[in-house]
Amino acid sequence: MTKRKHADALLDKLEQLIQELPAHIEIGRSPKELYEPITYILNLGGKRIRPLLSLLAYGLYQSNPEAILKQALAIEVFHNFTLMHDDIMDDAPLRRGEATVHEKWNPNIAILSGDVMLVKAYDLLLDTDPRLLREVLELFNQTASEVCEGQQFDMNFESLGTVSEEEYLEMIRLKTAVLLGLALKMGAVLAGAGKEDAQKLYDFGVNIGVGFQLKDDLLDVFADQAKFGKQVGGDIIANKKTFLLIKALELAKSEEAESLAFWLNQKDFDKEEKVSAVKKIYNALGIKELTEKKMHAYFAAGFEQFDQIHFTDESYFLELRQITEDLIHREK
Amino acid sequence: MTKRKHADALLDKLEQLIQELPAHIEIGRSPKELYEPITYILNLGGKRIRPLLSLLAYGLYQSNPEAILKQALAIEVFHNFTLMHDDIMDDAPLRRGEATVHEKWNPNIAILSGDVMLVKAYDLLLDTDPRLLREVLELFNQTASEVCEGQQFDMNFESLGTVSEEEYLEMIRLKTAVLLGLALKMGAVLAGAGKEDAQKLYDFGVNIGVGFQLKDDLLDVFADQAKFGKQVGGDIIANKKTFLLIKALELAKSEEAESLAFWLNQKDFDKEEKVSAVKKIYNALGIKELTEKKMHAYFAAGFEQFDQIHFTDESYFLELRQITEDLIHREK
Repeated sequence: MTKRKHADALLDKLEQLIQELPAHIEIGRSPKELYEPITYILNLGGKRIRPLLSLLAYGLYQSNPEAILKQALAIEVFHNFTLMHDDIMDDAPLRRGEATVHEKWNPNIAILSGDVMLVKAYDLLLDTDPRLLREVLELFNQTASEVCEGQQFDMNFESLGTVSEEEYLEMIRLKTAVLLGLALKMGAVLAGAGKEDAQKLYDFGVNIGVGFQLKDDLLDVFADQAKFGKQVGGDIIANKKTFLLIKALELAKSEEAESLAFWLNQKDFDKEEKVSAVKKIYNALGIKELTEKKMHAYFAAGFEQFDQIHFTDESYFLELRQITEDLIHREK
Repeated sequence: MTKRKHADALLDKLEQLIQELPAHIEIGRSPKELYEPITYILNLGGKRIRPLLSLLAYGLYQSNPEAILKQALAIEVFHNFTLMHDDIMDDAPLRRGEATVHEKWNPNIAILSGDVMLVKAYDLLLDTDPRLLREVLELFNQTASEVCEGQQFDMNFESLGTVSEEEYLEMIRLKTAVLLGLALKMGAVLAGAGKEDAQKLYDFGVNIGVGFQLKDDLLDVFADQAKFGKQVGGDIIANKKTFLLIKALELAKSEEAESLAFWLNQKDFDKEEKVSAVKKIYNALGIKELTEKKMHAYFAAGFEQFDQIHFTDESYFLELRQITEDLIHREK
């Protein structure tokens, strides 16, 4: 990994702001049941990739990205709000290896803390030039609605027999990719970038966002267990409709189709046996290569947009590219 | 009830906007599971008192209150978002006599529809003069956070042994009253009213809001069943910590204290017998008169603020007063 001069300095400032957050948005107030989960989930860590994209996109055009730390943090707070509520809906016990909010407290507290977190995300956006505030909020609202739509489609998919490749790609675009697009576009808009550049950065973000989710789907099956943070094969064990499973269901014929159906319908099974069996089917059908091809097409489409943008400071351009490349090649 | 010239015309326009809402804020989009609950809950009815207060407060200073229909509706959308999430938390089966969203669909859909509803409330606020947008959003955010705080205190009270009168009054101020204050103040701010008048309208709203909740507490026990929409005594049956119960627990001595404790601890009981027994204790302790006295003190404090405001159009002033009086004397 090459030097990340801007990124590391900006991330330090972002973490500092997260620690100071209670003072900024009054989350130190009573009742503690409402506010403690906010600092808890924000301090579970994470790569802070979304606010980082905002800050670096701003840096392409203006030399003081620390001027938009609050707006960048708004996107991270929004993201963590969606995690808090998604974890209730998915009945997830763990988040980054720690108890989820609805497990550590209870579901009602996770609902209400999430609600107030969304309000606090809006609070963080208000420190914006009044001439830009409406545009920023419109972008934010549009994206926030789309993220909810994506989560609803994802929940709908659980009870659907078949999901098409197209439906899946649209779901992940909404659920995860548009927020990366927003992060980049918001940074550019706040820096006064031109409309075309802001839009190209948005398209870059959405394309790499879809690519990153395909990468997640791949890693869940093919990661090196020694390097991967969680259990390899988790999606297979849970019958999760990932790009890999959707393609396998589409392509499997006769024996492989039967075997896949068998494992999807098993109630009691040995986890390792199931993972190994489904992986064997994936390998026979060339699912890994197919998914990688699709993923790289998204990355290529993203970089095609990215390489067309105008910018003032090349060092931010190079760093944005490097960080994206690092994420493309991550092993966990 | 006297003539409500402005109110009825404005409420017609508000209902029309609610019917057109899908086009305005894209809630006609897919997936339907996400958006149908929004139109469902908004069409369960209600008095629309909050948006009406905004519109009438605006009318005090400007002759075109229909100019802020969207902002007024934002408050109603926000209010219904809180109802949708509160109903999950309270495990309530019915809302205005119809199935609640988490019952008609499921809790996950009620969480996510509520989330997107909050985003749509912000969307409706954006059609605001850029010079006022930040102030309006700050007011809105402050109030939205307080409403969540109030709901959390209310949930906390359920598992607390004793709640003081002061704690209860602060809880209802946050949970229900500040939103009436916001509705009035936002109307005034959007109309360009002076800071002092806007603040007095806020204080008027908060005071009558606390008074209205005390009225609700009273009606639940002492309403005429023939006129009351739901079962009289519901709060007694559920051991709900209302102002009445809190005062009774504070004042009851020896025999009455024992009887009250007996009924609060009964698991199996005849509902009518319990209501009648607790009511008898309330009567012996003069709880009705005590609560009425407290309620009227809040109404008086509210009107004291209201009567000091400056305004341009007296007809709105008189109508705001009349509507408040009607709510004070309502029997359901």
